[in-house]
Amino acid sequence: MKKIELGELLGQMTVSEKVGQLLQLAPMFYKGTITEGEITGPMAEMGITTEVSENAGSVLGSTTASEMIAIQEAYLKTNRLGIPLIFMADVVHGYKTIFPIPLAIGATWDVELAEKMAAISAKEATAAGLQVTFSPMVDLVRDPRWGRVMESTGEDPHLNSAMAASFVRGYQGNPDELAENHEKMAACVKHFAAYGAAEAGREYNTVDMSMRELYQNYLPAYTAALEAGSKLVMTAFNVVDGVPATGNEWLMRDVLRDELGFDGVLISDWGAVKEIINHGTAANSVEAADVALRAGVDIEMMTTCYLENLERLIADGALPVGLLDEAVMRILELKRDVGLFEDPYRGLKGDVDRQQDILSVEHREVAREIAADAMVLLKNDGDLLPLGATGRKMALVGPLATTQDVLGAWSWLGDMKDAVSIEDGMKAQFDQVDVAGAMDTENVTEAEIAEMVRVAQDADVIVLALGESANRSGEANSIATIRLPETQYPMIDAIRALGKPVVTVLFNGRPLDLHGLIEASDALVEAWFPGTEAGNAVADILSGRVNPNGKLPMSFPYTTGQIPVYYNHLRTGRPADAADAQEHYVSQYIDIPNQPLFDFGFGLSYTTFAYSNLELSSDTITKMDTLTISVTVKNTGTIAGKEIVALYVQDIVGKVSRPCKELKRFTKIDLAPGEAVVVTFNLTEEDLRYYKPNLDFTSDPGDFNVFIGTHLQAAFCLA
Amino acid sequence: MKKIELGELLGQMTVSEKVGQLLQLAPMFYKGTITEGEITGPMAEMGITTEVSENAGSVLGSTTASEMIAIQEAYLKTNRLGIPLIFMADVVHGYKTIFPIPLAIGATWDVELAEKMAAISAKEATAAGLQVTFSPMVDLVRDPRWGRVMESTGEDPHLNSAMAASFVRGYQGNPDELAENHEKMAACVKHFAAYGAAEAGREYNTVDMSMRELYQNYLPAYTAALEAGSKLVMTAFNVVDGVPATGNEWLMRDVLRDELGFDGVLISDWGAVKEIINHGTAANSVEAADVALRAGVDIEMMTTCYLENLERLIADGALPVGLLDEAVMRILELKRDVGLFEDPYRGLKGDVDRQQDILSVEHREVAREIAADAMVLLKNDGDLLPLGATGRKMALVGPLATTQDVLGAWSWLGDMKDAVSIEDGMKAQFDQVDVAGAMDTENVTEAEIAEMVRVAQDADVIVLALGESANRSGEANSIATIRLPETQYPMIDAIRALGKPVVTVLFNGRPLDLHGLIEASDALVEAWFPGTEAGNAVADILSGRVNPNGKLPMSFPYTTGQIPVYYNHLRTGRPADAADAQEHYVSQYIDIPNQPLFDFGFGLSYTTFAYSNLELSSDTITKMDTLTISVTVKNTGTIAGKEIVALYVQDIVGKVSRPCKELKRFTKIDLAPGEAVVVTFNLTEEDLRYYKPNLDFTSDPGDFNVFIGTHLQAAFCLA
Repeated sequence: MKKIELGELLGQMTVSEKVGQLLQLAPMFYKGTITEGEITGPMAEMGITTEVSENAGSVLGSTTASEMIAIQEAYLKTNRLGIPLIFMADVVHGYKTIFPIPLAIGATWDVELAEKMAAISAKEATAAGLQVTFSPMVDLVRDPRWGRVMESTGEDPHLNSAMAASFVRGYQGNPDELAENHEKMAACVKHFAAYGAAEAGREYNTVDMSMRELYQNYLPAYTAALEAGSKLVMTAFNVVDGVPATGNEWLMRDVLRDELGFDGVLISDWGAVKEIINHGTAANSVEAADVALRAGVDIEMMTTCYLENLERLIADGALPVGLLDEAVMRILELKRDVGLFEDPYRGLKGDVDRQQDILSVEHREVAREIAADAMVLLKNDGDLLPLGATGRKMALVGPLATTQDVLGAWSWLGDMKDAVSIEDGMKAQFDQVDVAGAMDTENVTEAEIAEMVRVAQDADVIVLALGESANRSGEANSIATIRLPETQYPMIDAIRALGKPVVTVLFNGRPLDLHGLIEASDALVEAWFPGTEAGNAVADILSGRVNPNGKLPMSFPYTTGQIPVYYNHLRTGRPADAADAQEHYVSQYIDIPNQPLFDFGFGLSYTTFAYSNLELSSDTITKMDTLTISVTVKNTGTIAGKEIVALYVQDIVGKVSRPCKELKRFTKIDLAPGEAVVVTFNLTEEDLRYYKPNLDFTSDPGDFNVFIGTHLQAAFCLA
Repeated sequence: MKKIELGELLGQMTVSEKVGQLLQLAPMFYKGTITEGEITGPMAEMGITTEVSENAGSVLGSTTASEMIAIQEAYLKTNRLGIPLIFMADVVHGYKTIFPIPLAIGATWDVELAEKMAAISAKEATAAGLQVTFSPMVDLVRDPRWGRVMESTGEDPHLNSAMAASFVRGYQGNPDELAENHEKMAACVKHFAAYGAAEAGREYNTVDMSMRELYQNYLPAYTAALEAGSKLVMTAFNVVDGVPATGNEWLMRDVLRDELGFDGVLISDWGAVKEIINHGTAANSVEAADVALRAGVDIEMMTTCYLENLERLIADGALPVGLLDEAVMRILELKRDVGLFEDPYRGLKGDVDRQQDILSVEHREVAREIAADAMVLLKNDGDLLPLGATGRKMALVGPLATTQDVLGAWSWLGDMKDAVSIEDGMKAQFDQVDVAGAMDTENVTEAEIAEMVRVAQDADVIVLALGESANRSGEANSIATIRLPETQYPMIDAIRALGKPVVTVLFNGRPLDLHGLIEASDALVEAWFPGTEAGNAVADILSGRVNPNGKLPMSFPYTTGQIPVYYNHLRTGRPADAADAQEHYVSQYIDIPNQPLFDFGFGLSYTTFAYSNLELSSDTITKMDTLTISVTVKNTGTIAGKEIVALYVQDIVGKVSRPCKELKRFTKIDLAPGEAVVVTFNLTEEDLRYYKPNLDFTSDPGDFNVFIGTHLQAAFCLA
């Protein structure tokens, strides 16, 4: 259906039908499902009539192809103009094959793996009848108290941007071919904007930052997702510059539409249109509908401010019908772009059995690869790891030892029953593994600890699997104190008291204060929530089948009271690490160091890498030049390994204070023992731009430092 | 000397002499002092020549009248044009008579007492030869990790503004009569702007906030100080909108000079001009001097960027001499305004012996009154307090029991030897007091704890004096975890284990997480750092001689991980306390409550007050009207007491999200037992203005709530 035909279609629609397109409801509101769209209970409460559900434009969270087909068939029987429904859901890190949480995917620093993850997610989700996923979440995060850091890829704008683009490419493929390519789905980048900056890390809390901070650090990843072609954008729950994002005309019209050039569908987050009232910038649902439509929010998710009010507002002339029409047109275009007008079932009623795509062996293999590559080796005293596959008597203990609750939050379509527990994964790769788990991560009992001690006391090495349960992070799971659940500390002490080598495997959705754990561990593997293949991936790392190669995408604070701490902080007037720093009157705490416990970018390997020969193609470049920066990286150990090579730049003098350093380029290389390669990065003047006091995005002539590895540094000048 | 004459004086000055006026050095750099201005050591390092010190315009931190006279006499012998030096210092909460720390003064909510404090400070400081005090610090604070919260009056813009004006009035009296009134001194409001928002509570750290936040919450108290006539302003160490305040032309020209109408002397904080280089917005001292002068910074404190560079920059035409002239003129005007041209010694060489003004009985009495009125009763189970003066055997134990280190930070001119320890204060009012202290608040030894237990075990009631040492708060004393020093917890446990009534008296410069202390105390008095009369004031409260009447000027977080937590927060889309709130998907932590442990405005009394009959003069006002709000407050207990009556307003719907409530008026009343008074507040449309998205400061027609006391609420409408 061509654009012009959509115009004709729009011309045939009543205002009521148009408003219907802007409404998104859960499957229970439609015919064809078990509840058969009966107008009772929640539907009646929300004022949903049969007419409404026959015209509502999209479905939130349907889960299977059969459900989608049933709903779509029933819907198209009654929808006057035959405009198909579009089906959307949160497929965040996999549909049935669950990949590690996005924060872990960030830890891979591997954009190709990230793209593979998204492609497999799309393949499974489209086989289940979905056309849109509410992913990627690219919110920059600096506060591990916030539970939803697990759904982001971390604290760095550049890494987040690269990951954002990879996710979008993986989900969508070529966005112009979505109609034909039924294994691809539309992406929805979220949450526009700055949802990751919830004050005090408290979920849904207010957000406040300068315009420069917004533009410099928070907007880039959304922009990257849009440049990669993301078909949709979701609004944030929070205020931006004092106004709820969902009713923020400046943010959505001036910034998103005009500056960033987005012309796709803007959807509210769950209930966010109505929540404008709670924020206190709309008095009632009439005003909420008014400001949201003026802001250009096309789809209202799960509340009915549009439904209740738009027809009247337009009839009264309070809102121009043009605003409604443009929203409807964007929704129709999306439906056209994903091919629903050609085939409302996107091939699922055809001959090919797409169900075999779900949780396939191939998908699980990729999930295992990503999960292992996401793990970060934080400590490995005396090269305790890898353990090797045989010969040692191992005890696997701790509350995460036996559980299949390793998928992480936002994996609601995944099934724990499909997950490989650590126990099963370990037993598949190691000869002798005795196991003692615990029922509840929050409440490890004394009896369970006693059993762990009994099992562990005869072992040669103890693997301690602990951390958070999946539902301790994710949406609405903010914690004030980023420690382990308290009852795990006596367990740690009891295990440590055995005096045996301890390998800790940590499961968690956020950076934690690791004091009390790191000292008690000879080796520590940050496993995040690894997903369906959790146990196999953990065993891969412990056995050495995979050499750890992840690096932290977010700083691990020294303690809760150090939050926010992030690597690319602005300089201060009294830096503690300056050559001429005073002892006392510098920027520091008197009770802890300034550095986080583990820095952004930190991660060990079973081998070692040596960096040398940092060379710049020139010590001065003009705005026309490309600066080539090369460095030799050599695997100086005895086993093969991957290394993330990262280039950081520091702008020494700016019109505003500039970060100590900023990630500008990275790549991941794989080196055999003894192998050396020359890694080359190119920079141009564009990479040196930043937001000036007037928000102009330009560069300054002057000196810049570049940093690679832990100690190499060079300088160049932009003429 | 009239204004025109200053113009003539300026005309006679060489550029070098002008630049000299912009330099502020410590006494050691001048002749007349013990070091006699010898050009050695630090002076040589800083490039200070004899010629420089003969022309430098002001002195930082001289301490006595004799020192001032000696320096001034020596200086005027060599200064070509006979322009006297002006002497400045940090007199923050008293000169020799030390009052409680400013945060405690904030807890009095008593603007008259605050003004008295400042007046006495000025009387003593001028007797010691000072003409300018670097006070008040009016930085709004929300992060108790920051050590300098002790120097502010808390988290509320309205309370801070009232206190700011009181301090300025107290120091300056009538600012037009400073030349004649030698007991008054010029105030210098600091730190412009937003120094209190150091990120992560880490001293000197970067600051980031929206323009609205800056205008709405941070600027009002500076504005109030300027409206009260503060003669000077000091720059902040931090960046504002990315640019160091000290080199921030927008902040200092557009906001401070143009919008706020300030035409007095702008002085850098210590070294802050040179620190622009560290911030990375100036490459060297030439650029630092350039941007600071362009920003309108008149005096450079303790670094020599101006001295080294201005003459050359002006000679080269890089800087217009007009910028230098205006800075010099402001300094000359200040010297004229405080009367230095008429009498460079401001009466100190006259017949009157001003030294008797210092640490007088009267001054100490006021210090005692303020210290007692600043104390906040946080808990009083079973009406354990007041103790009454006789009949009970008391044990006074804890690391603050015997020390005279009770003055608090920023009392460098005070002398601990003059301070009344808690022991001495208690013994003056109670019959039987056995005492066991500790040497070090950070390290209470087991032996000391054993002695405390021994002393306490036979007592009828135990008074536990603990908290921070004075040097754990104040400048450059940020702590990451806002708990007591750790060795105090075993002490608390040991005392509590005796099973006796425990009255805790807490000394501290910041809100602390009181868990582990509050449960162990039957009664808890927040004493802050009370100053010279500490022991007497504590005894006044414990004995009941003074009925506690302070209220918290800053929220006490539930735990470190709740920071920032403050009462006047913006609403969110998913408030946890809404009537229709879900159980899980609301703005909250899953491990602690949203409320602080003790709220802003909290404070108990030995009597009880009942609020009733909240009445509004109208339910609708126009922009021309005054709304009168009255409430009856009755002392329903058996002893007299003071009560702080506070009026909060909530703007229900705004163009931006508005706070849950905002303090708009308060007063302190004194009621005999059974006495009732009607308290009346007036509001007008001006009180309802706020900063719109475009930063217009206007009101909206609509509904407002008013809150008084703990439960009274009413509503009105602005037509």
